[in-house]
Amino acid sequence: MREEKFVVIGAVAAGMSAASRFRRNKPGAEIWVVQKGEHVSYGSCGLPYFVSGLVKDIRGLVVYDATFFKQKRNINILTCHEAIQIDREAKVILARNLKHNNKVKLGYDKLAICTGAFPFKPELPGVELKNIFVIRTAEDGVVVRNFIDKEAPKAVAIIGAGPIGLEMAEAFAVRGLKVTVIKRPGSILQMFDEDMAGMVEEELKAKGVNLVKNAIIQGFDGDREGKVKAVVLADRRYEVDFVLLATGSKPDSRLAREAGLVVKANGVIAVDERMQTSNPDIYAAGDCVGQKHLVTGKDVYTPRGTTANKQGRIAGDNASGGEDVFEGIVGTLVSKIFDLTVARTGLSSNQAAAEGYNFVTSIIAHPDHSFTYPNPEPENITTKLIMDKKTGKLLGAQMIGKHKEMGVAKRIDIFATALQNRMTVDEINRLDLSYSPPYSPFYDNILIAAEVGLKKLRD
Amino acid sequence: MREEKFVVIGAVAAGMSAASRFRRNKPGAEIWVVQKGEHVSYGSCGLPYFVSGLVKDIRGLVVYDATFFKQKRNINILTCHEAIQIDREAKVILARNLKHNNKVKLGYDKLAICTGAFPFKPELPGVELKNIFVIRTAEDGVVVRNFIDKEAPKAVAIIGAGPIGLEMAEAFAVRGLKVTVIKRPGSILQMFDEDMAGMVEEELKAKGVNLVKNAIIQGFDGDREGKVKAVVLADRRYEVDFVLLATGSKPDSRLAREAGLVVKANGVIAVDERMQTSNPDIYAAGDCVGQKHLVTGKDVYTPRGTTANKQGRIAGDNASGGEDVFEGIVGTLVSKIFDLTVARTGLSSNQAAAEGYNFVTSIIAHPDHSFTYPNPEPENITTKLIMDKKTGKLLGAQMIGKHKEMGVAKRIDIFATALQNRMTVDEINRLDLSYSPPYSPFYDNILIAAEVGLKKLRD
Repeated sequence: MREEKFVVIGAVAAGMSAASRFRRNKPGAEIWVVQKGEHVSYGSCGLPYFVSGLVKDIRGLVVYDATFFKQKRNINILTCHEAIQIDREAKVILARNLKHNNKVKLGYDKLAICTGAFPFKPELPGVELKNIFVIRTAEDGVVVRNFIDKEAPKAVAIIGAGPIGLEMAEAFAVRGLKVTVIKRPGSILQMFDEDMAGMVEEELKAKGVNLVKNAIIQGFDGDREGKVKAVVLADRRYEVDFVLLATGSKPDSRLAREAGLVVKANGVIAVDERMQTSNPDIYAAGDCVGQKHLVTGKDVYTPRGTTANKQGRIAGDNASGGEDVFEGIVGTLVSKIFDLTVARTGLSSNQAAAEGYNFVTSIIAHPDHSFTYPNPEPENITTKLIMDKKTGKLLGAQMIGKHKEMGVAKRIDIFATALQNRMTVDEINRLDLSYSPPYSPFYDNILIAAEVGLKKLRD
Repeated sequence: MREEKFVVIGAVAAGMSAASRFRRNKPGAEIWVVQKGEHVSYGSCGLPYFVSGLVKDIRGLVVYDATFFKQKRNINILTCHEAIQIDREAKVILARNLKHNNKVKLGYDKLAICTGAFPFKPELPGVELKNIFVIRTAEDGVVVRNFIDKEAPKAVAIIGAGPIGLEMAEAFAVRGLKVTVIKRPGSILQMFDEDMAGMVEEELKAKGVNLVKNAIIQGFDGDREGKVKAVVLADRRYEVDFVLLATGSKPDSRLAREAGLVVKANGVIAVDERMQTSNPDIYAAGDCVGQKHLVTGKDVYTPRGTTANKQGRIAGDNASGGEDVFEGIVGTLVSKIFDLTVARTGLSSNQAAAEGYNFVTSIIAHPDHSFTYPNPEPENITTKLIMDKKTGKLLGAQMIGKHKEMGVAKRIDIFATALQNRMTVDEINRLDLSYSPPYSPFYDNILIAAEVGLKKLRD
């Protein structure tokens, strides 16, 4: 009897999770993964730390390499192979070997599409000039770092002010570059409330980053060699040696669409809770699909590596005969931006308003641990809650504190856990949280935020 | 019309929370608090850091002083007054002024007993010798620190190896003392599993603490001046300059018992969920009462400052006409012991066995954050789960990691939140937790522990 054949397109978070879970369930299966780039199973969230030089080698971002997967899990990975077609009738995928330019065919019994997302490039004059970079894949990171290492640029403009743009601002500042962040109209860090984002603006200023808000970019100017030399706004221009586009990402669903699979209006591949596409033999997971938001119950597109890992695992499980479902997300995020840790979960005020909630917010600043352990001295964490006025349930939380420990990142996870359990603010206020002076104030920030939130709910 | 009169016995965590909440609800009430000691509203969990010298002055442990309470909240505190009698017929308490030895009477409409606990002293020959100390109140802390400052002792024996004993071992080591910890038969840190406690034993050894296990203490030897000079075991003796008894605490319910209130067999004052005693005008809260354990549904005695704060607030609320209940605890605890952070919540294996659960455990060691942010290098956190085999629910969790940040303390709080929501390990495995390289591995320790736990549950 022929062993079952599982093919995966994409070898980063979702893809390798799918392949690994399939292997665990079916020890005898034949598993192939095709990957456009050279590197597999890497942590792209570490790219800012590779560009800054903290991580010396790009292999320092790789969790497991192709040799590991072959030797330990008997998973075959074809790197530098781009999947170019899915023939769902013949159950074959076609891939192009990007090094030798030949084509290979891989038959499958079950297929998982984990093509991820691609960086969104605004349609602006000059956007195709040289030295306008994006940062998404390991290969992108190598390009940017090599450019800095070899060309010794002095000034960079980052287009966009989301977490990736601002983490890269820090990386470039570490490299000694003059950094200009150019943001179209609207708040920076849009998934945060404006008052919280304002704290990050202060930090950027304090660290010498030139933040240009409300910018309407006309385009990019190049020199005779076709290299970008300026970002052009309506009323001024910024001379730069290179540009980083950090303007978001779009799900890479082209292959799926061309294969006739159902793709949603926002570009994500349609999947059910089991990560199954409209074709029962084809699964999809990661940044090319959407998620259900557990607070609103609605579909969203919130690409995250953690979600990709979980979805990939579930796709691999179901493809190999399992019965598992991906229930959804609450939109948790943490980012180190210079000396701040910024974190959020659930709905922001804008999101809550857009969803029609009758909500109230509360905000507190409170020390991260007790003054009875002054080593180091406590520093304030600002905590904002968004709460449903009718039910008293938490809708979302945001925290900003000094980057020095995990007090912000792990506390936001407590709120994320609360959201996932649909807790009311009153219930959060009753949590039996740990206390010892080095780790918490007498009443933890979580509990004080809930207490103050309760007062707001009662007002 | 006469204003309502609220009297509170005890001015630390529970007492001041009760008085403050009563004031918020009844702005016109007359509020009196009697406190045996000189200091009020202090953080006794900071005492190790006062003894070590990190906190310079005992006032450094005080959250708010009596002047603050008088001026800002119009709460009258009688310090150095020991409540000696409750006359529940006349609704009067009698207190002795410990400085002038006169007696005062305070009439009440509502009374809250927040007498806390007293250190348990084993009945051993010589236990009343000089320089055998306990550490519970601010005054105890002053006595111990003054002794070290003035007498320059060289060697100390700590009797008992719970969190307080081991935190004090660190404090004494910081002061340059030779520290011997003497533990009766049984594991150190009994609320932890033995394998976890073993990691702490290693740390104590590494830091030069002499840990004597399975000790049967015969008594204490004194010199001619009645000062302790040795701890005597069956087969050997330890010469010391002083001794700290860290052998647990007992609820201080004497006043309540003498007033005819119902006191339970384990010595706690009987209260309902509203913190009301058997007398409807008398409430009790804090270390003199018990708690319901939310995992087992049974009554326990797990004194904690955080619980005292919450119970005090609820007692003050109900005493002033509110309707609030204290639902219970999950037994969360964190402690810094030299360079380790040790934390736990829920049931230990021993507790789960004693309660008759059919349980399995899992244990992992995993880095606290991603290798793609090597500043500092990640260090392992050990995570142990105790799980109900039948329901798949989490019963308890324990974590030990290096003390350098809040990665252990706040992660145990995620498990505590999970317990309070009666989550299964499968549900925990689906949590949408934050990820960024400085703060978490790709799969957070929580998720990996849950994943490994699930495998154990299925075995």
